[in-house]
Amino acid sequence: MSDNKKQKKLIYKPESISGFPEWLPEVRRAEQAWFDHIRQVFESYGFCNIETPSVETLDAINAKGGDGGADVDKEVYVLERLHKEEGDKEARLALHFDQTIPLARYTAQHFNDLVFPFKRYQMQRVWRGERPQSGRFREFYQCDIDVINVDQLPLHFDAEMPAIIWEILSSLPGIENENIQIRISNRKVLIGYLESLNIPTPPNGEYTTKLSDKQKTSIVREIDKLEKIGRDAVFHNVDRIGLGFKFGVTFIKPFIDMCEQKFTTGDDIEEAFTNNADIDTSNQMLKEGIEELSFVMDQLSHLPEGAVVADLSIVRGLDYYTGTVYETVFTEDPSYGSICSGGRYDDLASNYINKKLPGVGISIGFSRLFERIRTKGQLPDLGKSPADILMVMPSEEIRKIASETARTLRNRGYNVELAHGGKLKRQLAYAEKKGIAYVWFPPFEDGLDHEVKNMNTGEQKTASPNEWSKDD
Amino acid sequence: MSDNKKQKKLIYKPESISGFPEWLPEVRRAEQAWFDHIRQVFESYGFCNIETPSVETLDAINAKGGDGGADVDKEVYVLERLHKEEGDKEARLALHFDQTIPLARYTAQHFNDLVFPFKRYQMQRVWRGERPQSGRFREFYQCDIDVINVDQLPLHFDAEMPAIIWEILSSLPGIENENIQIRISNRKVLIGYLESLNIPTPPNGEYTTKLSDKQKTSIVREIDKLEKIGRDAVFHNVDRIGLGFKFGVTFIKPFIDMCEQKFTTGDDIEEAFTNNADIDTSNQMLKEGIEELSFVMDQLSHLPEGAVVADLSIVRGLDYYTGTVYETVFTEDPSYGSICSGGRYDDLASNYINKKLPGVGISIGFSRLFERIRTKGQLPDLGKSPADILMVMPSEEIRKIASETARTLRNRGYNVELAHGGKLKRQLAYAEKKGIAYVWFPPFEDGLDHEVKNMNTGEQKTASPNEWSKDD
Repeated sequence: MSDNKKQKKLIYKPESISGFPEWLPEVRRAEQAWFDHIRQVFESYGFCNIETPSVETLDAINAKGGDGGADVDKEVYVLERLHKEEGDKEARLALHFDQTIPLARYTAQHFNDLVFPFKRYQMQRVWRGERPQSGRFREFYQCDIDVINVDQLPLHFDAEMPAIIWEILSSLPGIENENIQIRISNRKVLIGYLESLNIPTPPNGEYTTKLSDKQKTSIVREIDKLEKIGRDAVFHNVDRIGLGFKFGVTFIKPFIDMCEQKFTTGDDIEEAFTNNADIDTSNQMLKEGIEELSFVMDQLSHLPEGAVVADLSIVRGLDYYTGTVYETVFTEDPSYGSICSGGRYDDLASNYINKKLPGVGISIGFSRLFERIRTKGQLPDLGKSPADILMVMPSEEIRKIASETARTLRNRGYNVELAHGGKLKRQLAYAEKKGIAYVWFPPFEDGLDHEVKNMNTGEQKTASPNEWSKDD
Repeated sequence: MSDNKKQKKLIYKPESISGFPEWLPEVRRAEQAWFDHIRQVFESYGFCNIETPSVETLDAINAKGGDGGADVDKEVYVLERLHKEEGDKEARLALHFDQTIPLARYTAQHFNDLVFPFKRYQMQRVWRGERPQSGRFREFYQCDIDVINVDQLPLHFDAEMPAIIWEILSSLPGIENENIQIRISNRKVLIGYLESLNIPTPPNGEYTTKLSDKQKTSIVREIDKLEKIGRDAVFHNVDRIGLGFKFGVTFIKPFIDMCEQKFTTGDDIEEAFTNNADIDTSNQMLKEGIEELSFVMDQLSHLPEGAVVADLSIVRGLDYYTGTVYETVFTEDPSYGSICSGGRYDDLASNYINKKLPGVGISIGFSRLFERIRTKGQLPDLGKSPADILMVMPSEEIRKIASETARTLRNRGYNVELAHGGKLKRQLAYAEKKGIAYVWFPPFEDGLDHEVKNMNTGEQKTASPNEWSKDD
């Protein structure tokens, strides 16, 4: 048996690669249904699709920008041609780790061919070179929408984003039982508030000093962690930054008090600031932030209660957002983290083009969301096959009529799989295993009728290929 | 203007990366329509979808198999984590260059969870690390279908493949004016014929010697080039291999004569062999090849004339096909090469699993096909936007009713983009530029009607959001 031995030696175990998920056909069917649904909603708001290459130059990837900012340690995958020859000069290429850097490059590159406001959606894989031990996805899907305009972008787009996301998240098949909430803030509120502060100046302690940019950044970073670490830890950390414990209690507490309220209307927000004697709302940026956030909330009043709240603790790390910011959480499990985030930025593509391109965008962390619903066993059971009907093949003699019948039904919009023959019992078992709802029996001999069996009810009836309907 | 100067220094030109195509929204819309169409046809035959990760281990990629075989210099892209740390042990990963190697690994890995015959389609990007100067795609889409079974796979699946491909290629939007032909052969015919030969044995020249495997391989390689180089060059090359010019004329000519005929029915094929006194059809493999090819052609008799022909010159290089083989060409431009190829193989996953898994599959070279129709300017004009309707925003006062009307129409299945305001004239110009067919005017004040303008005809009519239809 030397042949067999030789063959055995070659066999090695096929294995998944950590962080690169793949699904069985039945799971992929649910995933496709999700993509179809998301696409349909995006398009219903007039967003066009683009795809960009999987790679950008390493220079472009390393340029400032992109989501996650300094808070995420962005591990990048670089490509190397296995058969690269000595002297082949080419730019180093890297797989994109988000869809924002590619969008910036794309918008600048095709600027003259795009119609602004440019509303695009993008649903592609992105890659992060995480350590295999981390358990994180290294390849996953994101579904992004962004609106980019030249010079200025009306604020109502900031309200359109969460409306679209809510429509999607409240109707993805399998997600119905999750309580999901979109949380919105505006970075101008916190930054404006910090700008408004006059802190004690040594040695006499008069309240005349402004916070430095570095101090503001540090405080923003602490507020960003509020939900995770709690207010006492925030005070403690602010103390450690060198601002003193008293500073936290005097200046940060009033803002944290506001953070712990959730507002649902513009009036609520404005009232809360007006009534808060500890906050001076005369700062221009703070005022703008409150106005913008109120406007956005008022535009979302048609959504069900609790779908969207204004939450001033939302900061989105230190990245490049300049106004509205979004996060989305499972309200019963906020520690799962945001499944859909984004915000407004002043200038998308300043690396590339001497035009001001403000934008607002939001990104669904598709794979993380899907993974949660999948592991909870809540995905809809769509069967293993897209076939509506299995056309059985009782004998070779009637292959022709079976094939013709299948074609007729396909032309009428049904998905029809032609069985490959063999014992009838096994053909029926095959339909059952694949979750195909109907089995069609072409006439076994001249003069007989077609018959269709409903696999769910077991009922079997005569049928005509030109007239039969699922609803019969 | 030091600020401006500083900014200018940062700006660099956004550029395409050679071999990594991307499209403007209007082209992408056509591309999406193609994918949707291909998916719909694949599913109408009961094929389920899978996706595999973009990467496999380099070991798996380098294992025997995959399409293209030794004829294509497969350049592979290897991934490197930019921030890989000393001591991080992990398998080397490479981007897949086809969808067959991933399918083999997938089928073996999930063997116990799949229902056989396993009919799957896969439409993903693949990567080939071509030199940037080559002008070839380095990232492109392939659309594959394969049927895999355990132990043996009925032959009628070999006929289903071209029927599906024909249905797709004859109805992709924009491809209508191309003359496309699927060419089918069976490798057993040529291999069987070569096996049947008795060639002269030195020194006495008796016709008793069989061709060696190496000689057969060389001849197969020459026949594969027949259409490109012509029969005289084939004879010349066979001479150079050391078989002599006379060998070519005596033994290769009869087969080339057959190659230059195109057969459309099983009877034609069988008749041609029977009537060819120079070919001995008693060889078992040759017989099988003729029978199989005839069966496949007979199953395709419902297709229009010229859609599918049997062409014995089709060999598909030296790769792993063992029976039926397919190629697809533009009949007016065969030098463009095959846009859709495949065949039958004995054993998909022998590297991984101790089971015999025969299969048959075919792959649409999506990007090459799309690129041809695109560069010929034949893609359908689907506009730059999926929106059916632009909802104009004549003033901020009626934003609420405009938004509500948009929601009503979306719920009725229309894609509605909400204009962002500004001068009405500019909003209309925007609809025109984006190719949005209808512009909706919500009532400018209480008591007025909604109105809709058809941008193609210029006609403007009153309408109700709950009743309006495109066909009105």
